[in-house]
Amino acid sequence: MNKNFNDLLNNLKGLDYKDLYQNDFLLTWDKTQEELEAIFTVADTLRYLRENNISTKIFDSGLGISIFRDNSTRTRFSFTSACNLLGLTIQDLDEGKSQIAHGETVKETANMISFMADVIGIRDDMYIGKGHTYEKAVAEYVEEGFKDGVLEQRPTVVNLQCDIDHPTQTMADALHLIHEFGGIENLKGKKIAMTWAYSPSYGKPLSVPQGIIGLMTRFGMEVVLAHPEGYEVMPEVEEVARKNAEKYGGKFTKTNDMAEAFKDADIVYPKSWAPFAAMEERTNLYGEGKFDEIKELEKKLLAQNAKHTDWACTEELMKTTRNGNALYMHCLPADITGVSCKTGEVDATVFDKYRVPLYKEASFKPYIIAAMIFTQKVKDPAETLQKLMDQNKARLIR
Amino acid sequence: MNKNFNDLLNNLKGLDYKDLYQNDFLLTWDKTQEELEAIFTVADTLRYLRENNISTKIFDSGLGISIFRDNSTRTRFSFTSACNLLGLTIQDLDEGKSQIAHGETVKETANMISFMADVIGIRDDMYIGKGHTYEKAVAEYVEEGFKDGVLEQRPTVVNLQCDIDHPTQTMADALHLIHEFGGIENLKGKKIAMTWAYSPSYGKPLSVPQGIIGLMTRFGMEVVLAHPEGYEVMPEVEEVARKNAEKYGGKFTKTNDMAEAFKDADIVYPKSWAPFAAMEERTNLYGEGKFDEIKELEKKLLAQNAKHTDWACTEELMKTTRNGNALYMHCLPADITGVSCKTGEVDATVFDKYRVPLYKEASFKPYIIAAMIFTQKVKDPAETLQKLMDQNKARLIR
Amino acid sequence: MNKNFNDLLNNLKGLDYKDLYQNDFLLTWDKTQEELEAIFTVADTLRYLRENNISTKIFDSGLGISIFRDNSTRTRFSFTSACNLLGLTIQDLDEGKSQIAHGETVKETANMISFMADVIGIRDDMYIGKGHTYEKAVAEYVEEGFKDGVLEQRPTVVNLQCDIDHPTQTMADALHLIHEFGGIENLKGKKIAMTWAYSPSYGKPLSVPQGIIGLMTRFGMEVVLAHPEGYEVMPEVEEVARKNAEKYGGKFTKTNDMAEAFKDADIVYPKSWAPFAAMEERTNLYGEGKFDEIKELEKKLLAQNAKHTDWACTEELMKTTRNGNALYMHCLPADITGVSCKTGEVDATVFDKYRVPLYKEASFKPYIIAAMIFTQKVKDPAETLQKLMDQNKARLIR
Repeated sequence: MNKNFNDLLNNLKGLDYKDLYQNDFLLTWDKTQEELEAIFTVADTLRYLRENNISTKIFDSGLGISIFRDNSTRTRFSFTSACNLLGLTIQDLDEGKSQIAHGETVKETANMISFMADVIGIRDDMYIGKGHTYEKAVAEYVEEGFKDGVLEQRPTVVNLQCDIDHPTQTMADALHLIHEFGGIENLKGKKIAMTWAYSPSYGKPLSVPQGIIGLMTRFGMEVVLAHPEGYEVMPEVEEVARKNAEKYGGKFTKTNDMAEAFKDADIVYPKSWAPFAAMEERTNLYGEGKFDEIKELEKKLLAQNAKHTDWACTEELMKTTRNGNALYMHCLPADITGVSCKTGEVDATVFDKYRVPLYKEASFKPYIIAAMIFTQKVKDPAETLQKLMDQNKARLIR
Repeated sequence: MNKNFNDLLNNLKGLDYKDLYQNDFLLTWDKTQEELEAIFTVADTLRYLRENNISTKIFDSGLGISIFRDNSTRTRFSFTSACNLLGLTIQDLDEGKSQIAHGETVKETANMISFMADVIGIRDDMYIGKGHTYEKAVAEYVEEGFKDGVLEQRPTVVNLQCDIDHPTQTMADALHLIHEFGGIENLKGKKIAMTWAYSPSYGKPLSVPQGIIGLMTRFGMEVVLAHPEGYEVMPEVEEVARKNAEKYGGKFTKTNDMAEAFKDADIVYPKSWAPFAAMEERTNLYGEGKFDEIKELEKKLLAQNAKHTDWACTEELMKTTRNGNALYMHCLPADITGVSCKTGEVDATVFDKYRVPLYKEASFKPYIIAAMIFTQKVKDPAETLQKLMDQNKARLIR
Repeated sequence: MNKNFNDLLNNLKGLDYKDLYQNDFLLTWDKTQEELEAIFTVADTLRYLRENNISTKIFDSGLGISIFRDNSTRTRFSFTSACNLLGLTIQDLDEGKSQIAHGETVKETANMISFMADVIGIRDDMYIGKGHTYEKAVAEYVEEGFKDGVLEQRPTVVNLQCDIDHPTQTMADALHLIHEFGGIENLKGKKIAMTWAYSPSYGKPLSVPQGIIGLMTRFGMEVVLAHPEGYEVMPEVEEVARKNAEKYGGKFTKTNDMAEAFKDADIVYPKSWAPFAAMEERTNLYGEGKFDEIKELEKKLLAQNAKHTDWACTEELMKTTRNGNALYMHCLPADITGVSCKTGEVDATVFDKYRVPLYKEASFKPYIIAAMIFTQKVKDPAETLQKLMDQNKARLIR
């Protein structure tokens, strides 16, 4: 799978992805198959250049703006790394929520911060019905500012996790699979179990399971979504998964039985999340300022979780997968039984066995983000990549 | 007005502005007319280069230090953008006030942070008699450090807003006017109304109205300062405005009647500020640790403000301006009636009509800051700008 | 002492320091004499290049990660300056202590932040037995990540101050001495008094006195450690100092008499620190959650300090040094009697006399840090320095 530069570039040249240019990356299902494949290819090419000590800086100056409405070390480092790789400097927008709540204010702020901005990365995953809406609004406002001549360039918006999707995570996950299985074509027919798992903490976001079923159903895979009753994800995203499976010749099924999901699976992705309906209720309570009710809800959810401590990725369960050897995936950090908590999502021995692949899985994220920016800001990515190659500037003068 | 590169460079070459070099930018009235014009011209030239995808990086490495003794998203982004445009990396000095209060400590800190610093941007506008004094002290200490051989380069200090002036804002405002009216020479005889307007919040800084009357009186304009009785600005700055008007063939008048100020105005700049005397009292109370008295003062000021809710930039008032069509200006964010507050500085319909010009007004700020740094750090700016043009390095390899 | 570029490069070429490459800098006594001398030489060479407006950027992109488990303006700026000088962008890891407490989590976080990281600078000096251990763990984990193919490059770890040593400070101090005395060979036989001094604050770190006796004993100097009874430093580090003195032909003595230490000293370094045993007790109490006991301990220590207000660097004491003219050193900020406190470490007149040398002492730190990164990341530093010289790219296009 270690293609050389020319193979990658030829692959890229054969794809139609021109609509990525001057656009945003909010949801994977907004994009065509060839567009996603172009992003994978550009990510691999950027990595090739960097691993060969060749500069990947396409920006001589310019800002990458991060808006994190939730704490995040890992996503922050991934976004910073991606921007740095391309030559952009990070500037964080650190406003209180209240200050950027109004539509008017979002429009003004979006323009005021964007005079030199080439990309705006946003993480806003806390409230159902809010994050994606906010990201879309920012994208529309900077588009308007660009058309009105306020902005000299059109900053591209990259979704670093919203209430609906987590494309930088799931695209990195997919690129990891492509490398592990030796090519995107080899994913066809593989069974992936996206299953709920018990965690002592409550209210983990839905964006990963939703993003996984929305994306993996595009590669002809057999995607199984498993969770206890009451832990449903957004019905709209299940619909996306269903249609994808149909269109791309895969399969999307649901079960309330973890063992069934793991049976003969090639890939397992066990992690905790909160029920969609409960998160929606929480958002409404929050909007109404009913904080006592929110505390009640959290207590109820924790109690509900506690009934499902048997939903764990154990050694025994792993043995039931394809050759007892399925690829274990996680977006990290995982709740590891006996390590980070008493009872968690995964046995310590399972986690340990897959530590290196898990870290490698994460290593794709900066490249995926960089590839999204690259394809959205550069008119002819293949030509620019060739220029970087020809220019052959050392990343480190060593 | 869209001059080409050669016109701009020729204009610059005809100006005497050599004293900007190795100096600071604290107050516009410290500078000669040709110095200000050089800054406008360099700002336009940098913008020309960037808009034509030509690198404006004159620094290969180096730090721009920001000291914000007050929160500020927009000024922070402007300063970061300006530094990034020139190749400097931002490092924020985030010390508590107490830590840098003493003269000894200011001297030491100013040197300790400046070993690699090319510019120090300071915003310190909260207390009358403090901000400008602090900025001058930092400038003197780094000058001394440079002469003593402690610092290899002399970082230039840029006033990002103090208690007296707000030169990066007002210079950007002036450049906006130059572009709107087709040249600095066309500002002659134009009437600009710098007027107070009601806002539900209290204690907005005086630096904008002071900066505007201190700067706009230099271009032969008819500057009217309007406010209710009791909302006087610093008398020293009024004196600057009076002398400027005399020297540069303009006019400076005062009125307590908003309608009079707006009558036949070419430009209106309605915004709220706190009375100078009250701010001075507040500073003294703060120094004496009389916090209860400060609360009393704030209450009194809010009550005083509330008597003047009729000081608003309404549709009706706008009709009385030149051809009913004056250019509306604001440093943003504005208090918009019915949008950001119940009763504010400006009608929503007026604000909406001018949204794009307002955003463009703001877009000049990063370039003004960059031009200040450029002229203060580069010995022969015209030559260096020519080098950037000849070098023709792409800002974005696209 | 102002050697030219070729002298410096020839000096460097004569040294054996190849083991610095792909290694970390945690303790000066882990390094050979020639390795330290190589770092001094690279620091001087980088400074030569920068002072001659020649770019020192060896990194086209890449991150420098800072982990400050304690507030620090000056160290932060030094590290940022060093990274900037070489072309690295700073990204701060700002996690709560609890989040990175576990071994598992340290390993995972160390890898997750390091995908694009070339250096990790860590300051962790608060708890005896913790800081160095943590830094070593991070170094091991990224080494492992590199070997496992998770990381494309091996980030080097630089100790920005731990519980045991403060190498970036003491190496900068040593380079200051080398410049003041005109060469490393001239330090032989010089007497340096590392003495305790009274400060009204409690619990200052031991890393400076420990680092100084651990390093200065290597240059054939006569190192005297002076403190009141009960203010002992770590016995292991005293042992290092003793062995160094023996090996390198110097002298290491201890005294409880400040006057004895100052007598005929060429260099004095008076500063406050907390007794090692008390800091160890404090760490244990902290680990056991005994916060009331910690308060008791602090009270006891402050009372103990107060008995030694006569341990001060006075004019009188300075007169007893070599020719009444010893070089006064301090890591800054100092507690200056009558300036920053009522009674402190040093007389205001003494401090004032040495202000410029003190500031110059501090100015070496960014270069020392940069030289550590340079020698640890670049395979053939002499060759790369020559490339920078030949390339002759302007730091500032002026």
